[in-house]
This record gives sequence, C-alpha cells and structure tokens, in this order.
Amino acid sequence: MYPFETGSFAPRNAWYVACFAEEVRQELISRIIVNTPLVIYRKQDGEVTVLGGRCPHRHFPLGKSHLENDVITCGYHGFSFGSDGQCVNIPSQDHTPKACRIPQYPAVEHGMWLWVWVGDPEKADPDLLPSQEELALKSHGLIPHTMFFHEVECRYQLLNDNLFDLSHLAFLHGTSIGTLENASTPEELEKREGFVSSMRHIRDAPSPPLMQKQGRYPTDRIDRSMGMASYLPGLHMGVTDVSYPASHPQVPGEKISHNRVYHAITPSTPGTCYYHFAVAVEDGVDVDQMRHSLAPVIDEDIFASVEIEKIIALYDGDPPAELMVKSDRNAVEGRRMLQAMMDAEQAEKERA
Amino acid sequence: MYPFETGSFAPRNAWYVACFAEEVRQELISRIIVNTPLVIYRKQDGEVTVLGGRCPHRHFPLGKSHLENDVITCGYHGFSFGSDGQCVNIPSQDHTPKACRIPQYPAVEHGMWLWVWVGDPEKADPDLLPSQEELALKSHGLIPHTMFFHEVECRYQLLNDNLFDLSHLAFLHGTSIGTLENASTPEELEKREGFVSSMRHIRDAPSPPLMQKQGRYPTDRIDRSMGMASYLPGLHMGVTDVSYPASHPQVPGEKISHNRVYHAITPSTPGTCYYHFAVAVEDGVDVDQMRHSLAPVIDEDIFASVEIEKIIALYDGDPPAELMVKSDRNAVEGRRMLQAMMDAEQAEKERA
Amino acid sequence: MYPFETGSFAPRNAWYVACFAEEVRQELISRIIVNTPLVIYRKQDGEVTVLGGRCPHRHFPLGKSHLENDVITCGYHGFSFGSDGQCVNIPSQDHTPKACRIPQYPAVEHGMWLWVWVGDPEKADPDLLPSQEELALKSHGLIPHTMFFHEVECRYQLLNDNLFDLSHLAFLHGTSIGTLENASTPEELEKREGFVSSMRHIRDAPSPPLMQKQGRYPTDRIDRSMGMASYLPGLHMGVTDVSYPASHPQVPGEKISHNRVYHAITPSTPGTCYYHFAVAVEDGVDVDQMRHSLAPVIDEDIFASVEIEKIIALYDGDPPAELMVKSDRNAVEGRRMLQAMMDAEQAEKERA
Repeated sequence: MYPFETGSFAPRNAWYVACFAEEVRQELISRIIVNTPLVIYRKQDGEVTVLGGRCPHRHFPLGKSHLENDVITCGYHGFSFGSDGQCVNIPSQDHTPKACRIPQYPAVEHGMWLWVWVGDPEKADPDLLPSQEELALKSHGLIPHTMFFHEVECRYQLLNDNLFDLSHLAFLHGTSIGTLENASTPEELEKREGFVSSMRHIRDAPSPPLMQKQGRYPTDRIDRSMGMASYLPGLHMGVTDVSYPASHPQVPGEKISHNRVYHAITPSTPGTCYYHFAVAVEDGVDVDQMRHSLAPVIDEDIFASVEIEKIIALYDGDPPAELMVKSDRNAVEGRRMLQAMMDAEQAEKERA
Repeated sequence: MYPFETGSFAPRNAWYVACFAEEVRQELISRIIVNTPLVIYRKQDGEVTVLGGRCPHRHFPLGKSHLENDVITCGYHGFSFGSDGQCVNIPSQDHTPKACRIPQYPAVEHGMWLWVWVGDPEKADPDLLPSQEELALKSHGLIPHTMFFHEVECRYQLLNDNLFDLSHLAFLHGTSIGTLENASTPEELEKREGFVSSMRHIRDAPSPPLMQKQGRYPTDRIDRSMGMASYLPGLHMGVTDVSYPASHPQVPGEKISHNRVYHAITPSTPGTCYYHFAVAVEDGVDVDQMRHSLAPVIDEDIFASVEIEKIIALYDGDPPAELMVKSDRNAVEGRRMLQAMMDAEQAEKERA
Repeated sequence: MYPFETGSFAPRNAWYVACFAEEVRQELISRIIVNTPLVIYRKQDGEVTVLGGRCPHRHFPLGKSHLENDVITCGYHGFSFGSDGQCVNIPSQDHTPKACRIPQYPAVEHGMWLWVWVGDPEKADPDLLPSQEELALKSHGLIPHTMFFHEVECRYQLLNDNLFDLSHLAFLHGTSIGTLENASTPEELEKREGFVSSMRHIRDAPSPPLMQKQGRYPTDRIDRSMGMASYLPGLHMGVTDVSYPASHPQVPGEKISHNRVYHAITPSTPGTCYYHFAVAVEDGVDVDQMRHSLAPVIDEDIFASVEIEKIIALYDGDPPAELMVKSDRNAVEGRRMLQAMMDAEQAEKERA
C-alpha cells in the first residue's frame, strides 16, 4: 500500500500512541490501531488496561459497553470481562469457559501518552520507547501540554511523510510558522535503528510571520535551529531553539527561547489514522494563545494529507512513481526502515 | 457472507415483508428486496401488485415514475406498464413488443403486512405463511397496530441474530424492557421446518424498569412468559404473557395481561435491510404511549446491529469465528435453516 | 463499463470541455478529466494553459496551490512549474532536474468553452472541433450565454444517453419543455464520423407547457423543428426552430424564433462527470428568465441519471441487457462510435 509495497500497511510490533494518558479515566475509550479494535480504561488502582474491543460472542464493540469495578460488561448480551481480558460472567449460563477471553495488549503510560502494542506481546519492551529525558519532557526546563486529537481520513504514512520533510513549512505553513529558509537551509540528517532526524540551522534570518505578528521574540532577525526527530513508527518530536544572531550588537548568540512539539501518528484502518499533537514549552508561555495559533497549522497538514489521499484514489491507491529530491532523503530513510519492520514481521509470519 | 457461507446472502424462495399493507395505496412505493428493485401499488380494484422496479429500457426506477389508472408510466421515456407487468405503450412507436415487460412478483396481504416473493414464482405458496390465528392477529383478544419502519445500514442477519437471542434484553434494553432474568432463565427451544422459537418462563420476579415506571402492572413481582417465535427467513413474533406469581396472596397465577410484537426483517442489499415493527395488544392499552416507549428500544437494536456491521468491516466482512454459548442454540438453528434454504436454491440453480 | 464493454470507460483522444472559457482567469482551476487530474489557468499574455494537476513529488493537487506570474508553486513543498510544465524551482536545492516536469495538455478556447485533450498530444487537432459557424455561435443572429456547471454523481454516458434520445422530453420534462409530440414524431437521423443527430419536425401542435405559461410565442399551435446534434464524445447541440403552422390564416410558415442549447458532458472519474450547459438565443430574449426556467429542467436530467446510477449499482455496475426500441437508434449509433474510439485506442496501446 503506497508508499509501501503491496500488502504492507503498518508494523504491528511497535508502540503506538492510543490516546493522551490524561484522557484515560474510569470510562471506556474506543480505538482501532492497525485495524485492531481496542477498548481502553483506567482501573480503580490507577493502572491502565487495553483490551480487544470486539466481544468474541457477537462482535459488539466493547468500547460502547459498560464499565463497573474494572469489569467491562458487553452492551449487547452482557458477557463480562475482567481487566486481564478473561470472561468472568456469561449471564445466560453458570459455566464460563476459559476460552472465552479477549486479548489484553501491552500498554504503557510514558510522557503525555498511552502507548499500545498490538503485535507479538513477547516483543513489547517499554525500553524501546525514547526516554523522557530524550523527549525533553523532564528536563530542559520545559513544561508539557497536550493540544489536539484528530481522526484523519488518510493513510498514516501521509502524515509521517509530512513530518519527515519539514521543507513543507515554507509553503504549507508559509503564512504562519514557516519561512523560505525552512526549505533552503541544508539539512543535517541523522539515523539509527528506529530513528531518523533532520535539523536545519537557520542563521540570522527573519522570524516566521506568526512569531513576528505575535511579537514573540525581542528581535526581528534570529538564529533558529529547527528540525524533527522521528521515533518510528510514529512519534515525531519537533525541535526549535531560538537565539540572537551572531550579528547582534549586544547579545550575539544568546539564547532566546526553545520548545518541543510532538506529533504522534497512529495507523488506524488502511485509510484512516489518529493524530495526537502536544507541546513542551518554557514557563510563562501563553499556552492558550499557542493552542489558538497552532490549530490552523495542524489543520493545514491534515488538509494536505487528505487532499493527497484523494489524488491517490484516482490511481486506485497505486499512484505513479514519485520524483525524489535531496530533501526526501529523510523520508526515504524513514520509509525504508518502516518497510524493513513490516518485511521482518512478514518473514516471521511465513516461518511460523 | 457472514454469518453465512461465502456467496450466501439471503434465500429468494421466501415470503418477505415489503411494507405494511395499510401503506399500499394508489401510489408508487419503491423497495429493493434481496437486491431486486420493486415497485408496489394498490390497483383501483383494491388488489396489490408488485412489479420489477427497473424499467427494462434504460434502468430508470419505476418507483419514481407515474401511476394512473393502474398503469405505471416510466418517468424517463414514458414506457407504460400494466399491472401484470406487460408494456402497453412505447410513446415513440406504434408497435409494443410482447417481450417488453417487467416481472410481476407474487404478493399477498396477510396480517398487517404485504408479503412479496422474489424467487421462483411456482413455489410461492401463501400457505407457507403462518396463519393469522398462529400470529394471534385474529384471536387472543388482541388488536394489531403497526408501529415503525426503518431502513437499516446493516446486513439483515444481524437483526435476525438480535431476535434469535433474547438474552440481549437484559443488557441492550436493561433500562427499559429487560431484566437480568431475560438472560438467566433457561430457554425452552422449539423447532420445525422454517421455524424456531425460544421461550423463557420467568417466575416471581420484578417487572422490567419501563413497566415499573409506567405502573403497567398492578403488582411489583410478576410471572412472565417471554419469548420469540421466528418464522424464517424474517418474521419474528415476540410473545409476552404476564400473570400474578404463585406467591400472590389473593390471586396466585391469575392472568394480568399479554401481547405480541412483530419484527419483520427483510434483506434489501447485502449491506442494508428493512425493519417493520408492529404489535398486537389488549383493548384499552395506550398505543401512543407504547409507540413512544418502544421507539428507543428498537433504536437500540438498530444501534447494536449497525455497530457490529462496522466492526465486521474491519475484517473485510469476514470476522473471526464467534464464541458460541448455550444461549446461541436458537440462533445457530435459525442460521442453519437459512443456510440450508440458500444451499437448496444454489443446488437447484446448478442443476438447471 | 456499462453501457460499454468491460474495461472501456471513455476515449482519451478527444476534445473535452473542461470549463467555460470565461471562467479561466489568472487563478487556478482543478479538474479531473478521464481520471486525469488537471490544473488550468490563464497566463498574463491571455493564453490558457492546462497542466497535470498532480505534483510529481508527493501527489499534492496543484489546483489547490499558488499561481504568480504564470508560475504554479505547489502548496506543499513549493516545487514551482512554468506554464509549459517544466519545474523551474525546487526550494530545498539549487539544482532543478530536467526530468522534473508535469505534462502540458493541448487546450483550445473555442466557442464558449475551454477544450482539453488528455490523450496522445500528436493527435490533438483543433479542426476536429465543430466550427463556430456549425455551432451557430457566430451566425444565425444568435447570442451565446453560459448557463450552468454541475459535477454529477454518475458515469458520463448516462447523460450522453439522455441527450441522444429526446423522447424523454415528453416525460421527464413533460411539465416544462416537452410535449407528447417530442416522443411520437418520427425522427430524422443523420450520422457521420464522430457525429450523430436526431431531428423531429413537429407540425401544428401545441407549444410546450413552459412556453405557454410564459406566453413565449404569439400563437398557441406552432411548428417546431427540434433535435440534437451530438459531436462525440460529449458536446450536444440542441436545435429549436419555431414557426407559424401552415394552417395559420395570416402568416403560414413564417418564422417565429429559434435558439440553440449546448450540453457539454465530460467524463471525470468512472462514477462522476461534469455538465456544462449554455445557450444561444436571439437578441431581446430574457436570459435571466431563461436561466430560471431551465435550471429545474437540467436538474431533472441529472436526477434521472443519478437514479439510474443507483439502480446499476445493484448489479455491481453490470445491469441486465436493455430493451432497445426504435427511438434508441441514435443512442445505439452514438455508443457504437464511442466504443469504436475506445477500441482503436486500446488496439494502438497493445501494438505499442
């Protein structure tokens, strides 16, 4: 499935963001991750549990059922399931067969997110996640804030591709957070297993239109280091470090501000995905203003991705080969790693 | 097609409810039954006719055309068809070929319904229908009332399955017409060709929340005999008989009230169906109140079925095997009979 | 694809109306013609250019991008394309590869329309278009006016078929522009390569209901010559010439009025098409009133075509054979020519 090989949709052996951790309360949340229906809730002891979202009896969605004392009761025929997925009651009979259970999926709260693993549970290692230190969530003097959740009508990789290539800031977001330098400045690429990143060090250039309008910085021309650190398959951390340019008469090179933004892209069905957006900013930043300013920016990314999905549909999902340029190296590498993850899963499946 | 074998959708050699008989007037009604477009109207002599709903000339829907003096005139190029389906006029020519005709389908008004047969007309025997006596329409001191018509976005069998297993009353309708006893009381099953039924005799138990709220019964604890008699493929008669419990000091075992409800489920396209709901109640029952009370109950059944259809879509219509329990015996038997009907039609088709 | 052979959708080697010429300004218009995404604009020198509407980099729609100084800049990553389709700038790099280009499609303004050719450009000969003289756009004392543009949810051929057979005027438009004589009067058919036409000379008959209501003609009974000249694949010119009947005491046979109407049907995707409607009328005709009167007539044609598309869907797009009658000769001939055009393209493709 574009841009992957035919039959490749998304890796299953991976941590995906299912929701913001703060959203998980003692009530049921429905999600579909890599085509797998899930139901999510917080137990009375404070732990989160993630279970299969389809009642094994008649396929009713457990996420639209009832929760009481950590037990889900299916809204249709009342089969009840404990927080480990084991059926604990079938109202129409005394006997509850052991075989009646729903899968429990590995889940971990980490940073602002609840992460779920819908693949082989043996492989679900929380250490595969980037550390909070690495994500600048418990350091750098930044305060994390959740921002937006969207269900998007496009394949997840279109949003990944969006984030792999920040040259789009100059155009898709050219009236808000981007300037031409976001495209023209050379990239510093980095990669390691399950990780790609691209950084641009923009020197002595005007600040973006939105920041100018808001008087965000005490000077017109700034140095900006901007980039994206992508933890595959779907967490992208945007990095921004702003300082006075070397040409500044009083405080050359002095730091002005910095922040991180977090785009969590989760494959839902082949044609839909989830988008969780969050930030970490310095104390004193007007977070409500930031939310207001960034909402249309994220909407632009969604607009572009959904429009591309419509173009792809003209080709029955198999569009002509893309013209690749230098700024696609990061996306090419990210896609290659994702394809390799899927190939490895496929090979393992064939061996079994 | 789930829950049937691949390629099996619905029997054609069967009577299906197309509409309530009272709806059929001297105007055109469109229906699609087992993927067959139909047009229905009442002739001036009072008889009903059911014809193919597709003009054989250019496929225009005859149900969106014009009726005058028992003749349908296609709204597109004016081909006219008599009530037997024979074309009687082609406005652009003098000659009307005999071959120009639309099929006429066997139809019979019986009880509150118009029944149509889209299969082999030779086999269309009205005696296959349950008698009005059996349906308690002309006996038992009950008065029939039509209630609701819905076009539902799910395969018909999901609504059949809903009705085959009344243990769902305790949960899907637990705040209105169901109590836990609807699931926990053992079933009495019965079957014969083209018929399955399940009855529960609930003894000395609280009446359902809705009936309590409405003060429907003169006592809190009642005996209820409740069940569903299913005339395949799609008419389900719900039976309720209420009496004082044996423990009642004055009138142990004395009858309080009874009624029948009728769910007619008709396969339209593979992903849609029609739902006609009606009742038969004792004289003096407030039918408007009943209509008001039962509308949300039927909506719950539709909600469950449509939600399941969405879950099934995640598996391209071929979901994992179901976990069957004791209360599924009635559904299993009903499905088995329906599959046998389809298998027989298929075998006959292959012989021909 | 009905009514053509399996795999046949629409000829590519043909002129199709993309929009009214007057709509083409120095701003971007998106169209999809025979499944081909396009972007259209008028250059500063007044010429029109039609380019591929899909950015070759990441499939973003160029029709939703930016135009400045005849250069389109993709709204996503800022690739810029000149009016010949050649990429002139990739913001993230200095080098612009020659291979980076979008196709330019032959286009010609002719009459009220912009015509586009999405097939083999070598074959795109403007002389294949009917002359303005033939279309009565620069003669006959008629003044052209554009009227309506619709995107229609049906395969284009359903609208072509609508126009090939004007017997539908008597029924689909029986309360406005049609009378029974539109169906019953014998046709005069004409054909030559890429052209079919049907004319009816209706003599001494009542004028249509709409014209009567508007008091359009100075006499109740008129002679009307009415018909459709179809320039394949998709321009249909409706001809109406009205005169006093031979029976008129004072001015037998004297001309009353005449006009032409133009239906341009353009295949977009397999299930959608564009409909551009225009007229040419005598000086003094109330064009606003005409627009108001004809809007519901065109809506009726669209209604019929979309309804037929829904019926066809019941048969997975492959409906039963049609019953053909005498008045279908024009449609049969038109379809046959279109099929031959597609067959020729297919044969050429297979040779290559």
